[in-house]
Amino acid sequence: MTFVVVGGDAAGMSAASKARREAPSREIVVLEQGQWVSYGACGLPYYVKGEIQSLEELVSVTPEEFRRERDIDLRTGHEVVDVDPDDRTVTARHDGGETTVGYDHLLVATGAESVVPPIDGVDREGVYTLGSMTDGKELREFVARSREEGPAAQPDNGPACHFLETCEGAVGVVGGGYIGVEMAEALAANDFEVHLFQRGDRVLKGFSEATSEAVADHLREQDVALHLGAEVRAFAGDDRVDAVVTADERVAVEMSLLGTGVRPRTDLAEDAGVELGPTGAIATDAYRETNVPDVYAAGDCAEVEHVVTGEPDYVPLALTANRHGRAIGQTVAGDPTEGGPAAGTAAVKAFDIEAARTGILDHEEAAAAGFDPVTETIEAKSRAGYYPEDGRVTVTLTADRGSGRVLGASLVSGYGEGAVHRSHAVVAAVTEGVTVAELADYDLAYAPPFNTTWDPVLTAAKVLGGRL
Amino acid sequence: MTFVVVGGDAAGMSAASKARREAPSREIVVLEQGQWVSYGACGLPYYVKGEIQSLEELVSVTPEEFRRERDIDLRTGHEVVDVDPDDRTVTARHDGGETTVGYDHLLVATGAESVVPPIDGVDREGVYTLGSMTDGKELREFVARSREEGPAAQPDNGPACHFLETCEGAVGVVGGGYIGVEMAEALAANDFEVHLFQRGDRVLKGFSEATSEAVADHLREQDVALHLGAEVRAFAGDDRVDAVVTADERVAVEMSLLGTGVRPRTDLAEDAGVELGPTGAIATDAYRETNVPDVYAAGDCAEVEHVVTGEPDYVPLALTANRHGRAIGQTVAGDPTEGGPAAGTAAVKAFDIEAARTGILDHEEAAAAGFDPVTETIEAKSRAGYYPEDGRVTVTLTADRGSGRVLGASLVSGYGEGAVHRSHAVVAAVTEGVTVAELADYDLAYAPPFNTTWDPVLTAAKVLGGRL
Repeated sequence: MTFVVVGGDAAGMSAASKARREAPSREIVVLEQGQWVSYGACGLPYYVKGEIQSLEELVSVTPEEFRRERDIDLRTGHEVVDVDPDDRTVTARHDGGETTVGYDHLLVATGAESVVPPIDGVDREGVYTLGSMTDGKELREFVARSREEGPAAQPDNGPACHFLETCEGAVGVVGGGYIGVEMAEALAANDFEVHLFQRGDRVLKGFSEATSEAVADHLREQDVALHLGAEVRAFAGDDRVDAVVTADERVAVEMSLLGTGVRPRTDLAEDAGVELGPTGAIATDAYRETNVPDVYAAGDCAEVEHVVTGEPDYVPLALTANRHGRAIGQTVAGDPTEGGPAAGTAAVKAFDIEAARTGILDHEEAAAAGFDPVTETIEAKSRAGYYPEDGRVTVTLTADRGSGRVLGASLVSGYGEGAVHRSHAVVAAVTEGVTVAELADYDLAYAPPFNTTWDPVLTAAKVLGGRL
Repeated sequence: MTFVVVGGDAAGMSAASKARREAPSREIVVLEQGQWVSYGACGLPYYVKGEIQSLEELVSVTPEEFRRERDIDLRTGHEVVDVDPDDRTVTARHDGGETTVGYDHLLVATGAESVVPPIDGVDREGVYTLGSMTDGKELREFVARSREEGPAAQPDNGPACHFLETCEGAVGVVGGGYIGVEMAEALAANDFEVHLFQRGDRVLKGFSEATSEAVADHLREQDVALHLGAEVRAFAGDDRVDAVVTADERVAVEMSLLGTGVRPRTDLAEDAGVELGPTGAIATDAYRETNVPDVYAAGDCAEVEHVVTGEPDYVPLALTANRHGRAIGQTVAGDPTEGGPAAGTAAVKAFDIEAARTGILDHEEAAAAGFDPVTETIEAKSRAGYYPEDGRVTVTLTADRGSGRVLGASLVSGYGEGAVHRSHAVVAAVTEGVTVAELADYDLAYAPPFNTTWDPVLTAAKVLGGRL
């Protein structure tokens, strides 16, 4: 019995490792086109920022450790070019030519790639994405070079430059999602004048409006120049980008990052007859098996059902990839295990604040799923009112009017004030399908250094309950 | 219709306030024997420590605000001496004599009092408890006086004194529960040499052994002299205590705090024919009504059913008091509302670490409730391994072997590393009766500054799941 995995990151290596633990004698082959495996891409912004000193630190288990300690036949530099489900083989190209490997079970864990929108000049030098370790390396090199040499050209962007004491150089960040916000922090920490361009009218659009506003206010406080409702029309320049151009303005920059999302890498699977779902990612059943027998898919290339609606969703985040990979490893080892649904939970740090979201917040999305959504936002102290450290937490909670069921939440607070960990209670509530009254009755931990007697999450549930 | 409340703290004032909001024209009378109402007794250690400057800061709503803004007939200095359920009246003694008030609904919210064990010399001057605002005031005065005057007598306790640079004076803390641990911090912060005496072999015995050990180690690091397995036999001295005496040693002190727990104040209720439950606190139904019709009980004088076992429990903590008071207020206003069960959740800060516990951890207790308990403790990083801030969280999780149901948890971490807020996920799991496999599948928020991809709670669930 051979288990073949295509792609050696979170889902792939979780599956291979779990299969090895559960089935010590199984042959396990992992084919990875690059040189890096099992790395924490989520850490790249902190590498670019300079808080992490080498890319190697982002690697949780090295290729050598997988080979020696886990007895996994890991082949890096192997690009899989064909899957033949009839013969049950995969063919990979590598330096030495081509190799074909037979499989009994196959996992497609090909991940996602950064979306590169068709913007004029997007191919110019100095326009970066941040999807891979290589991307991270290039960005770090840019930052290091720029710090050593000083800015390529002193930009004159008018008032924005006055925000900073050391206006060394201006950079653009296109997209106000996690990557955009985290990279704004990383670049600002390196004394760049950061211009963040967001097509829509708010950053972190998957979070609540209250969270978006809090983050936007904080970004401005940190001297990030926020350009909202600003669709980028072009990256101007000669060989190299020297300005980001929107309908309204032209901002001189010495580089620009594209943080406009990711899309699943599905070509290989599609060629093999694997069906995609409505989101454009690979469709699977609860065991993460595709329509092709014994071919599984997990991680950023695959769909997951939403815990509230049960409908297919595309949530390319690390925990789901790990969780589903692990479940598949257990399944192919002979113990069929469902890789559970996802709640669309996400967390982000932006300079000195933190935010989390889970479930369904968008009223259109909730209505489409048959709910009658009601939303309430409260602001509360993060500790007892009399406790000396004084922080605040803002909680947005959405529920269904008829049933009272908790549908989703978005929290924001100062960094260390607990918005992210406090969201754990709501993730559970959303997963268990409890009502706001039931959530308000949770016996959450209380002591003055950690919350008010009613944790802000409970207060939000009480207040929202009063409106249903 | 008159709603009479006996006792003006958390349960009483929550009930009165909620009844007022729901029934604007109802007559609401609160009889409180002292002068303080609606105060945060949990904040007293921080007042003694000196982080809170006045007792008034601990008051969330003043008597005047209750009277003027909430139209509640709050009578302080009124000690209720009799309840007549046949006539439906209560009689209170006060400066001006006695007053009898008729009720349609009555809430007994008489709270708890510090246990004063029958130890020789316990009445000596300098032996304190910390149950009331008055207690807090006396302790603060002792601390202030001692700081001004220097220690009453320079103690010579041998090696322990060498721990401290400024060995101004030694104090005893008897009992290693929340109050003992919090007061050790408060007194050490005021340069006292703190001797903590614990009869059993570990502090915070309601938490896991791993948590107790972590807290004990940390207390020692903070130069608290821990005396474990040390039953106090006497408070020696003349008028004033000058030593704590155990079977093995005599430790010179200039004061000692008793933190040996609380017991429910039930005399008034018992005299009125109200029945107590197996814990010795007042028994109620799910609406917090006692065996005497229209007489309710809530807060530190009453029982609550445990969310796991459904059996009566005594958990004299603030959130349950608030929650049950609020439910009673709603019920007496005409909307019958259950005051839900409790999970026995508690949190504590000890110097620079934090801990939380919830549910059932004790194996004997679990077995008595019909479970076959299995416990696992894991230690994990509190953020991504590569993230620069490096903290740790220790999670102890207990589940039932047969069903996999999560029964309880205990977490400990550095202060700010999230042990307390991370416990929210387990409180929900315990409340909803989920299995460790289901808990391990929760889509908890993840980003490198907040946890590893699997939050330590999820890791604990995975590891424990592997042992069932």
